Amino acid sequence: MPQPSASFSATLRVRLQDRPGAFAAVAQAIGGCGGSLDAIDLVRVLPGHKLRDITVLATDAEHVERITEAVAAVPGVTVERVSDRTFLLHLGGKIEVRSRVAIKTRDDLSMVYTPGVGRVTQAIARDSEAAWTLTSKGNSVAIVTDGSAVLGLGNTGPLSALPVMEGKAVLFRELAGINAWPLCLATTDPERIVQVVAAIAPSFGGINLEDIAAPRCFTVEQRLRELLPIPVFHDDQHGTATVVLAALLNALRVAGKRLEDVRIVIAGVGAAGTATARMLRAAGARQIIGCDPHGALHRGRTDLDEAGRALAEWTNPDQLTGATDAVLRGADVFVGLSAPGAASIAGVRTMQPGSIVFVLANPVPEIWPEELEGVAGIIATGGSDYPNQINNALAFPGVFRGALDCRATAISEGMQLAAARALAGTVPEAELAVDLVVPSIFNREVVGAVSRAVIEAAVAEGLGRATEAS
Amino acid sequence: MPQPSASFSATLRVRLQDRPGAFAAVAQAIGGCGGSLDAIDLVRVLPGHKLRDITVLATDAEHVERITEAVAAVPGVTVERVSDRTFLLHLGGKIEVRSRVAIKTRDDLSMVYTPGVGRVTQAIARDSEAAWTLTSKGNSVAIVTDGSAVLGLGNTGPLSALPVMEGKAVLFRELAGINAWPLCLATTDPERIVQVVAAIAPSFGGINLEDIAAPRCFTVEQRLRELLPIPVFHDDQHGTATVVLAALLNALRVAGKRLEDVRIVIAGVGAAGTATARMLRAAGARQIIGCDPHGALHRGRTDLDEAGRALAEWTNPDQLTGATDAVLRGADVFVGLSAPGAASIAGVRTMQPGSIVFVLANPVPEIWPEELEGVAGIIATGGSDYPNQINNALAFPGVFRGALDCRATAISEGMQLAAARALAGTVPEAELAVDLVVPSIFNREVVGAVSRAVIEAAVAEGLGRATEAS
Repeated sequence: MPQPSASFSATLRVRLQDRPGAFAAVAQAIGGCGGSLDAIDLVRVLPGHKLRDITVLATDAEHVERITEAVAAVPGVTVERVSDRTFLLHLGGKIEVRSRVAIKTRDDLSMVYTPGVGRVTQAIARDSEAAWTLTSKGNSVAIVTDGSAVLGLGNTGPLSALPVMEGKAVLFRELAGINAWPLCLATTDPERIVQVVAAIAPSFGGINLEDIAAPRCFTVEQRLRELLPIPVFHDDQHGTATVVLAALLNALRVAGKRLEDVRIVIAGVGAAGTATARMLRAAGARQIIGCDPHGALHRGRTDLDEAGRALAEWTNPDQLTGATDAVLRGADVFVGLSAPGAASIAGVRTMQPGSIVFVLANPVPEIWPEELEGVAGIIATGGSDYPNQINNALAFPGVFRGALDCRATAISEGMQLAAARALAGTVPEAELAVDLVVPSIFNREVVGAVSRAVIEAAVAEGLGRATEAS
Repeated sequence: MPQPSASFSATLRVRLQDRPGAFAAVAQAIGGCGGSLDAIDLVRVLPGHKLRDITVLATDAEHVERITEAVAAVPGVTVERVSDRTFLLHLGGKIEVRSRVAIKTRDDLSMVYTPGVGRVTQAIARDSEAAWTLTSKGNSVAIVTDGSAVLGLGNTGPLSALPVMEGKAVLFRELAGINAWPLCLATTDPERIVQVVAAIAPSFGGINLEDIAAPRCFTVEQRLRELLPIPVFHDDQHGTATVVLAALLNALRVAGKRLEDVRIVIAGVGAAGTATARMLRAAGARQIIGCDPHGALHRGRTDLDEAGRALAEWTNPDQLTGATDAVLRGADVFVGLSAPGAASIAGVRTMQPGSIVFVLANPVPEIWPEELEGVAGIIATGGSDYPNQINNALAFPGVFRGALDCRATAISEGMQLAAARALAGTVPEAELAVDLVVPSIFNREVVGAVSRAVIEAAVAEGLGRATEAS
């Protein structure tokens, strides 16, 4: 049940005859086919006409076409041009590399480049730690993908992953002031990915792996963590797990339950589901059941891959079997990190009273939130059009800000737990409610709170290089 | 004979007693030990004292110390702090990644990132050429080095190459509006470098190889040119060759000689020397003699590597033998791309009248220009403190600007020749003189002239994708 939104918005340049009711007729035409009227700008006044830019929000691309036809059918109205706002915004790309120094004179140049830069090179050659202060390394993250699991679209390849990675880079910059540059790799071979990332690592203070398909993402991350002296963080795994844990901690507070006591069903055992299961265990959860499209993972399943078997080993303590809906009976928490239809409203009805239901598949959730109203106790989604948006952007900016600031050598489970608890703590106790278990991503306190917690945990574990050095 | 310069400048925070002649004494102390007084700022007026920031230019780091001691020895003067301007300028790095779009609202976010970005991804999945307009790819260059031949400093490794590559990125942005991001590789294995660059290529519209040692740089570049559908340009080779050719074309005009007729001695047959020899041949030169530390390359030499033998094959038509100084006898042009002392003033004296002498080793040239005064007809150097600075920054910004604007699949010899001729043409015929054969890198016409010529040549050779598509 998608709502009209900016992600499917278009600006119609419309020529209207100067007569009473002309604009009202256009507004009626838009509303009549379910479009939502957004900005209205006057472009020019012509003899007997007005030229206006009318921005409409629609539910999908086909909807934009229907709205355009309806407007064009209004007597005395001509649609001169339709501009898709999302595409306009992408023209020329969303990120750029800028200089932090001016070169107006030969003197500037001789310090920024040769011969002056030679002394900086020599200083780093003597003491490699100096690179953290004398170059951009200390504030730079590589966003690395092989384009094999882009959004919900699958293996679209490196080039079409690029706008997503640029969007991520925008978030890194705007939310945490971090330089992030996308590297979309023309290989999906795990060994090759490891080699490439290890080779480019010197220029960066951290590596954010993104949209790499499971189970390959596990081995790639594991190998890189062993190889590199800088943090390697697969956001689809750990970013998601961190925000889910934060939201769950607050939801349990609202529901008056304890993580140690609840039964949690996770639908989807890919990158996000597996990492979330591990993180919830680390935080104290004891009853976690992972489900794939064939139902609950248990030790009797013979159709699992290595990652699945590993998960079945320590989850599902009661060895429940059956479909996802079946194991939902009597459960307290459902976390959907899967696909539309992975669980049904009938299954949710069999959960404990005051059930906590996170339907995080994106853009279409496992179950539409409207269906869950009055059935589940607390609902969270992956979308921005409902309360409680579980958005990775609540975690990764602060996690990397903290990791870079203390020059962490890794992002440990302990640092992620600290991040999740700090994130949960940004919603004041008094404001906690069924429709407020996570803060808005525009909450300016989030990045600072998360990064402080990450630094503290890193220092406690001896993973913070800067603190050791200073 | 280095002059005091900004690349060895320091700012002294000095407390001066309020009495006549106090500042004059400081100025005298600085001048007395060869320092040059630059900016003078009043920081604060205190009872009986003034606090001033005095910036001095020195010739090297040790010179800064001597100046500081001299100032501190002036009665009534205290030096409170000495700040090295070059290092101050490098704090936090010289480049950053910025967002080109604002995310102030959920609507912005839904277009920049999910769900809106999904449609952009799908558009590129349908038509990969769309990545050139809908992402930053079309305006982005990777600056790739293995840190094996950094400036004149040799194999300093990837981390200490980073400030140099950032300086290059600053030039890309400031001179040509191009996004350039440094990738300093933790490998010097040619096959590994090729694999890494091929893997990261999708995010970029061009690859600038930098400071990779010869002869490895030749095979790396050759392999990548074969593999990739975007330009691969080793600036140490082709940038240098392009600017040398431009300067030589103008110098020959001033000297009243023709490229076809002159005998050219090139000292140094590494990346720059080899590429320059090839470029001069492509432009019409017939008598080119390459020299290494053992003297002229000729077919009888048994001590040459593969690249050296290849060069000996087609250069030195008269098979001259002997030291560089010996083959300078009767030559018209000397191009030094080597090291201090590769040729001597005695050798230059035996050249033809009106000799053209480029001493481009940096920071210390083959022969100091002061020695060449009155001996050579036209002198060019690699430094900014003499006329006729041969600076790669005259070529690569315009070459890449042009290549990106026409979405070139490669940068061909023809495109480089066109760039060199356009660069030479930016010095108006009437202004050509012995001390003006190349424009200033602050000449705003250079990038436009070079890029237009590059586009024209690319289109003529069928290497311009954009022109084909439109």
